[in-house]
Amino acid sequence: MYYKATIRVTLRPSVLDPAGVAVRSGLQQLGYTGVSNVRIGKYIELELEATDDAEARRQIDRLCDQMLANPVIEVYKFEIAALEAAAR
Amino acid sequence: MYYKATIRVTLRPSVLDPAGVAVRSGLQQLGYTGVSNVRIGKYIELELEATDDAEARRQIDRLCDQMLANPVIEVYKFEIAALEAAAR
Repeated sequence: MYYKATIRVTLRPSVLDPAGVAVRSGLQQLGYTGVSNVRIGKYIELELEATDDAEARRQIDRLCDQMLANPVIEVYKFEIAALEAAAR
Repeated sequence: MYYKATIRVTLRPSVLDPAGVAVRSGLQQLGYTGVSNVRIGKYIELELEATDDAEARRQIDRLCDQMLANPVIEVYKFEIAALEAAAR
């Protein structure tokens, strides 16, 4: 079966986010003074082939730990959805 | 009222994504041969102050168009949730 996965990788709350601070400062200069706590992460979409839901989740857990996220400073969340054969 | 917004900025489907191609190639070298169509985007969380839901959505639409996304090559989606005063 084919699955579509959407993965969000974000810095751990305890880790400083200089890019987020820069974006917040830029937004405030543009007049968005009510904006705060900006955090920037990665958003990854991918498709994968797996025998079932559980196997797809296992694969995504492993590939996030190995490549997409740095577990020391980042955490990830993901959702999967089965793809209809016709939709591919 | 305070709102938390989560924003996903992705390349338009017609735009090539060299970073996604590189990640796919890296994953395949790690043995994840069933992975395809990898697309990399940005995931942004922020808090903002607005009078109501509609005003919050208007502000986020504007700041995405002005700063967070490049509308020529990117699209964005977002969700907002009202923050309890106690949760801030």
